Amino acid sequence: MSGSPPTPTQSVFIARQNRLTTALAEAGLDALALNPGPSLIYLTGLHFHLSERPVVTLFIPGKTPILVLPELEMAKTRGLPFEMQAFPYGEDLESWPVVFRQATQAARIDGHPVGVEPSRLRVLELRILEEAAPGARWVSAEASLAALRMRKDAGEIAAMRRAVDIAQRALQATLPQLKIGISEHELAVELTLQILRAGSDPELPFAPIVSGGPNSANPHASPSNRRLSSGDLLVIDWGASNEGYFSDLTRTFAIGKVDAELEQIARVVMQANAAGRAAGRPGVACGEVDRAARSVIEQAGYGQYFFHRTGHGLGMESHEEPYMRAGNPLLMEAGMTYTVEPGIYLPARNGVRIEDDVVVTADGSESLSDMPRELITIG
Amino acid sequence: MSGSPPTPTQSVFIARQNRLTTALAEAGLDALALNPGPSLIYLTGLHFHLSERPVVTLFIPGKTPILVLPELEMAKTRGLPFEMQAFPYGEDLESWPVVFRQATQAARIDGHPVGVEPSRLRVLELRILEEAAPGARWVSAEASLAALRMRKDAGEIAAMRRAVDIAQRALQATLPQLKIGISEHELAVELTLQILRAGSDPELPFAPIVSGGPNSANPHASPSNRRLSSGDLLVIDWGASNEGYFSDLTRTFAIGKVDAELEQIARVVMQANAAGRAAGRPGVACGEVDRAARSVIEQAGYGQYFFHRTGHGLGMESHEEPYMRAGNPLLMEAGMTYTVEPGIYLPARNGVRIEDDVVVTADGSESLSDMPRELITIG
Repeated sequence: MSGSPPTPTQSVFIARQNRLTTALAEAGLDALALNPGPSLIYLTGLHFHLSERPVVTLFIPGKTPILVLPELEMAKTRGLPFEMQAFPYGEDLESWPVVFRQATQAARIDGHPVGVEPSRLRVLELRILEEAAPGARWVSAEASLAALRMRKDAGEIAAMRRAVDIAQRALQATLPQLKIGISEHELAVELTLQILRAGSDPELPFAPIVSGGPNSANPHASPSNRRLSSGDLLVIDWGASNEGYFSDLTRTFAIGKVDAELEQIARVVMQANAAGRAAGRPGVACGEVDRAARSVIEQAGYGQYFFHRTGHGLGMESHEEPYMRAGNPLLMEAGMTYTVEPGIYLPARNGVRIEDDVVVTADGSESLSDMPRELITIG
Repeated sequence: MSGSPPTPTQSVFIARQNRLTTALAEAGLDALALNPGPSLIYLTGLHFHLSERPVVTLFIPGKTPILVLPELEMAKTRGLPFEMQAFPYGEDLESWPVVFRQATQAARIDGHPVGVEPSRLRVLELRILEEAAPGARWVSAEASLAALRMRKDAGEIAAMRRAVDIAQRALQATLPQLKIGISEHELAVELTLQILRAGSDPELPFAPIVSGGPNSANPHASPSNRRLSSGDLLVIDWGASNEGYFSDLTRTFAIGKVDAELEQIARVVMQANAAGRAAGRPGVACGEVDRAARSVIEQAGYGQYFFHRTGHGLGMESHEEPYMRAGNPLLMEAGMTYTVEPGIYLPARNGVRIEDDVVVTADGSESLSDMPRELITIG
C-alpha cells in the first residue's frame, strides 16, 4: 500500500501486459499466477497487502486477466484502466476453494504449465491453486518477469532519482543527531523520521541499518541499544520510497579517533566502490562489476573480509535482478539499475560499507547518488 | 529487523521450544521448517529480513535446532542463549542445494512429516526443501503454531499495551494537522512520523490507512492524493510496534457537517463496537464476538454494508489467530488478544469503522485502547 497513486497510465499497463504475453510464449508458459507484490503492481497498478486472505491474479495470453480476491477488496477493482474479471470470496473459509476453482476453470489453466514467482508465492496460494487445478504444472517464471522489469524506462529512473534525493536529504538532516552516546536504535528512529519528512512514501524499502563498533562488522545487523562511543566505525544503510521505486544507500562514519587500520579499510572500500561504479556499461557482464570492486579489496589483502556480492538490482524491490555477483554472465543493458556496495568486515571489531545506486546508460553508467564517500569523523 | 533487542530471556525461549516439542508430537509431526518471521522470533529471538536468499530453521524434537542461512548473516547466530547448528552458504547459487541437503540430512527429516507455515513459507523454500529431502511430507503446522502463540503472557500483553499507548499518543499529536484541504497521503505521512516520534519501533505493523469521503467506503484503501472536504467521513486505521508486538486501531471523524445518515451509521458502529468488546470472555466462542457486533448493525438495517469479519487476533502479526469470524467455534482463553472492528461502508458514499484492541482476562475482557469512539467533527 504505497502512499502515492501509481503514475503509469492505461497505455503503460497495456504495453506491459502485451510484453508479458510475449515473454510467457517465449518461456513456454500458458499463464502466469501472481501474488500481490511488485510484479502485479508493475503490470496492473493494483496494490494489496499480503495477508492470510489469498489474492491471486491469473494472466492468460489473449484473455481478460482474472483476479481472485476477498470481497472487501473489491473497491480496488473499480475504475481500473483495463478489463479484469474478478472472482470475489467472502469471510467463510469454505467458500475459498470453490471460488478458486471457478477462477481456474474460467482461466482454463488445468493441465497447462503456469508461471509463478517462487520468492513471492506462498505455500498458502500454491496449495489452493494445486487443489483448484490439479493438472496444472507450476513453473518458475522468475527469469521472464525479471527480464520484463529489469530495464527501467525514463519514468522509472526519474522516480528512483527522486528516491535517492529523498534519502540523501534525510541523512543530511539526521547528521546533527549523530553524536557520541546516542544509541543505534535512537539514531535509526530519527533517520526513519527524516526519511518520511524528506518526502518518502510511508512504506520504506527496509528499516534502516544503524550499526556501530563491533555491530558494524555484521552487514545485516539490527539497530541495538548499544551507544556510539569514540573509536567506533558507524555504518548507516538506508533508503526511501518514491512512487513505488526505492533507493538503497550506505555510508560509514568514524566516531572520534579510530585506529589506523580502520581508516585504511575505509580508503580501500571507497576505492572498491569507485571501481565497481566505473565498471557498469552495456554489453559487460554483471560479474565484472563484482570483479572490479572485489579485486581492489583482494589486492589490499582484505579479500576474506568481503564475503558478500558487490550489489543487487534495485527498483520496485530492494533486492531484484540483476545481481552483481561473481561470475554472473548476464550482460548489462541501458536502463538496468543496481547497487554497488563493497564492504570490509573485521569480525568482532568494525566494518565499512559504501553503497551507491547506479543506472546503466547508453555508453556507460551513472551513479544516482553523490553524497561524499570519504570517512567523515563525527565528534 | 525490529529496532529493539528481543526482551525474552534464555529461559523463555527454552520454555517455548519445549512447548513446541509437545505441540509437534500432538500434531504427529517429526519436525518443523520455519521461514524468518514471527514464529521464528517467538521461538528464538532471531530476526532475518525475508529476501531472495532463503533462511530456514529446522526444529527437531530432542535435537539441536538447525539453521540454514547466508554466510553474511552468521553474526546473528553468535551469542544466542541456546545451541543452534548453523549451515551457512555463500554467494555461489550452486552451493545452496548442497548446503540444504547437508542440513536436512543432519536433521534426518527425509521420509518424515514436517510442519510448515503456509502463510509464511514461500515456493522458493518449499522447492529447495523438497529437493533436499524428497521423501519428506510438508504439512501445515499453522494450527499448532497458533495454539503456541495465541495466549499471550504478561510480558507480551505489557508490550502490546505500550504499542497501543504509542499509537493513541501519535494520533493525538496528528489531530492538529487534520483539516479541510489536506490530502490523505499528506495526513498518512504526518501520522507515520508521529507514530515513530511517539516511540514506535521503526518497522510499523502496516502503513496507516487514511481514507476520506468515497474512499472511506473501501475498508482497505491506500491513501490517495484526494483532499479532505466538508461533508466527508474520514477513516484512520493505524498501529504501532513495540518490542515486536503491535497495536491496530481505527477511528472515524466527520469533516465539517456530514449528512444525517452518516451520523447515524457512526452511532450504530459505535454500539456494535461496544457490543463486540463486551462479548469477550473465557469459554465463549470467537464467533460470538462477531455475532454480538454484527447483530447491532443488522438490527439497524445495515447488515449488507458490514461485509468483513468483526476482528482478528493481534500480537507479533497484524493479523493472526484467533479470528473473530462468524461461526468460529474456537473458545476464548485468558491472554488471547484481538481486534474488534465493525464497520458500515455505503458504496461510493462514505464508511465508518471503529477498532479497538482487546485482551481476554480471567473473567471477561479488557480493551487496551480507550480513545473516544464518538464521531468527532473537525473544521
